[in-house]
Formats: sequence, C-alpha cells, structure tokens
Amino acid sequence: MTSIALIMAMDEEASPIVKALSLEPKGYLCPPLPMCLYQGEWHGKQISLVVSGKCKRYGVDHIGPQGATVSALKTIEVLSPSIIINAGTAGGFVKAGAAIGDVYLSFPYVCFHDRRVALPGFDRYGVGEYTCMDTRELASKLNLKLGVITTGSSLDITDSDISIMNSYNGIVKEMEAAAIAWVAEMYQVPFMAIKSITDLVDTETPTEEEFLKNLSLASEKLSKEVIKLLGEV
Amino acid sequence: MTSIALIMAMDEEASPIVKALSLEPKGYLCPPLPMCLYQGEWHGKQISLVVSGKCKRYGVDHIGPQGATVSALKTIEVLSPSIIINAGTAGGFVKAGAAIGDVYLSFPYVCFHDRRVALPGFDRYGVGEYTCMDTRELASKLNLKLGVITTGSSLDITDSDISIMNSYNGIVKEMEAAAIAWVAEMYQVPFMAIKSITDLVDTETPTEEEFLKNLSLASEKLSKEVIKLLGEV
Repeated sequence: MTSIALIMAMDEEASPIVKALSLEPKGYLCPPLPMCLYQGEWHGKQISLVVSGKCKRYGVDHIGPQGATVSALKTIEVLSPSIIINAGTAGGFVKAGAAIGDVYLSFPYVCFHDRRVALPGFDRYGVGEYTCMDTRELASKLNLKLGVITTGSSLDITDSDISIMNSYNGIVKEMEAAAIAWVAEMYQVPFMAIKSITDLVDTETPTEEEFLKNLSLASEKLSKEVIKLLGEV
Repeated sequence: MTSIALIMAMDEEASPIVKALSLEPKGYLCPPLPMCLYQGEWHGKQISLVVSGKCKRYGVDHIGPQGATVSALKTIEVLSPSIIINAGTAGGFVKAGAAIGDVYLSFPYVCFHDRRVALPGFDRYGVGEYTCMDTRELASKLNLKLGVITTGSSLDITDSDISIMNSYNGIVKEMEAAAIAWVAEMYQVPFMAIKSITDLVDTETPTEEEFLKNLSLASEKLSKEVIKLLGEV
C-alpha cells in the first residue's frame, strides 16, 4: 500500500484535513519530541499526517525551518513514507497573480530566501534549490497554480529576501518547504509542497494581520485541495 | 565515564581539535546523513566530536541551523552524551570589546536573531532564549569572555538582525548555537557554546573576507581553549 506522509506546521492548518479524512490521533511521533501523528487508510492509501506540535515554553506550534527539519527526519525514520507532501499556508504576490485562498503546487523546486553566505559553494548551498516531484500534470488536472516555493525563518519578508526570491523566480513565500525538501533529498524520498495563500506580500497590509484573518479560510481551502491531491498521487 | 559531545559545523574548525586530542575517525554518525563522528578517550572522559559533513550537491559543509538541528538530534539519539558543547567560529562586535581570536562562552542563553514572527507567543518562540549551563566560573578560570551568543541562517547580518540582537544584549553572532540548544532543551541535555571570533561585524571589512582570512587562526585558538574547557567540565 502506498504510504503518504503529510508534514504540516500548525494544528489549525492540519485540523480540517484530520477531520475530512477521519485520521486517528496516534499521540507523539517520537517522544520527547513534540511532533504529533494522525493516521488512517483512505482509498487504499496509508495516510500519515505529522504536525510539528507545541513548544512547551511558549505554547505555540514549532513553525519554521528547525521544527520542519525535525518533523521530516523523524517522519522518514519512523514511518518510511513513499512520498512526502508538505502542506501549509503561505504568502503570495499580487504581481505574480496570486489571490487569498489560491493553492499552489511546488514546481520545479523549493529554495531558501534568507540563507545568505557569500562564499564559493556556500552561496548555492544557502539557496538550496531542491528539486520536487513533477507536479505539472497534477496542477493541470486539479486546476492548481504552479511555482517556486521559498522558505525563510520569518513570517515577514525583507527587501533582501525578495531580491533573492526574484533571482530564481520564487513566487510563494513560507517557512518550512525547503527544510523538509533538504531532508527528503538526503533520504531520496520524493517530495512536493502544496500551499494555500493567507496573505499577499506586495500589499500595504502587514503580513501578520492578513495571516490571522485568512488562516482559517486558507486552511479549509488547503484541506479540499490536499484531499483531491491525495486521490491522484 | 562522562560523555561529552562536541558539535561543530565545519571540517576546518574541527580538525585542530581532532588532531590535538588524537580522536579516531568513526565514519558517518548515522547514514545516509552526512554528519561525521570522531571519538576518543581523554583524561578519563569519552569525547565525541560530530561535524556536520559535506553537502553532496555543492561539496560544502552543512553550516547553519538546519545542519545543526540534525547534528544535535542524531548526536543525542546515537551517543546519549552527558553534555553538549557547540564549538565554532563567530562574528564579534568592536563596540562590545571583541577582537579577532577572542573566545567566548555562552551566558546566560543563546537566541535566534532572524526568526521574526509578529504573532503573540510566536514572537518569543522566534527568539528562543535557550538557557545554557552556568559558565561563569569556567570563564573566570580559563580567562574567556562571556556573552549572549545569537544564531541566524546567514553569514552576513542585516540591520533588523542587529536590532533584535540589541534587544537581548547579543554580542556574538554565528549560525548554529540556538538550533542545537533548542534540540538539547527538548531532550534535557545540558548545553553550552564556545565561539572564537573570525570577524568583527561593526567594521567596514565584509564578513566573508575577514572570515576566510581569519578562519584558520580562529580555529587554532578555538582548539586550545576547547581542550582547556574539556579539562574542566
């Protein structure tokens, strides 16, 4: 049976998918780490959803590249999935035609936008450019957008981040995909990301305001598209 | 026997210590991950040195928070050390009295300086503020400097990073300590960092230029102080 692992950063992003697929909570993936596992069979596929879990000190989800790195590593070690899909919310760009609630598949790669190391070799390592599964047919069939998804450690974005994104045509900005893709590449597990837009980077509204306002809507939209995607992969 | 794990990002930083302690190369810590292990007994202590290893695609060391996160996680899982020491090179500040080759111990914590998330709780999670072992007596005995060591994903630093560092009196800037401290805290393994200054952030010379010029000197200096430190912990 095909085993698909969904890796997600926030409980609120994950809960519509957990409900829609009736996934069963299995507790911690690998104590004492905070990642939580939900599992179920769906249309002959084994679905495992791993969320990053809560920080004990600050009570918030372990968002960002460090949490995503650990989630990916333990997901691969414990569950040996055939495919990893990183699903989540992200920032889009009006100039690239994005609107709130749009859903993107990663293509052809995911990159980092805030790892600047101006030394030979390290400069390209910093960007990463991890090749994803070919999602072109899927995007066409499911009517989803396609693009280079890029990862950084912050919810906001600086001019330097945008200039790095522009250098490789990055059009979707989030906080986990490239970290997960890096781990998946080391273990040679096929990877793709699917991201629903909560906020538009190139508008006047602060990211955090738009993010909170649209998180629920974008997560519901994400859930619908992730379920269609699981039917196809 | 006390088991001490040294976690280091770059081969060039690690090699003077491997030589001085006659540590034996043990190959990969946990294939297919790139981290390499060196081990030996020294003055009745089991010393394990883990370096992040080379990226297959770009041929460079896995520097930065993602590599450090994986190094820390596998070091703890495979070696169960009593203490983790993150040793490496870093940027210092003239305004804080730093000079090239100065060696700092972490105190009282290590933080991130480039994880900006302006949402309640996530803002503090982004900074991290991981408490380190109390290094005051060690610093006094070994004549080392003390300070808040801060971590980011880039070799350079932005105005925003500096402003975040100033908010918690960060005076040493590097790329791994807080990521390792985060993992160590989850497993309740005592942690400290020791960092040797390769470059001065608040001067005109570009970081990458100073870094390359002083890496060898700073690594030799680091080696001497790490060995004295291992005698005391």
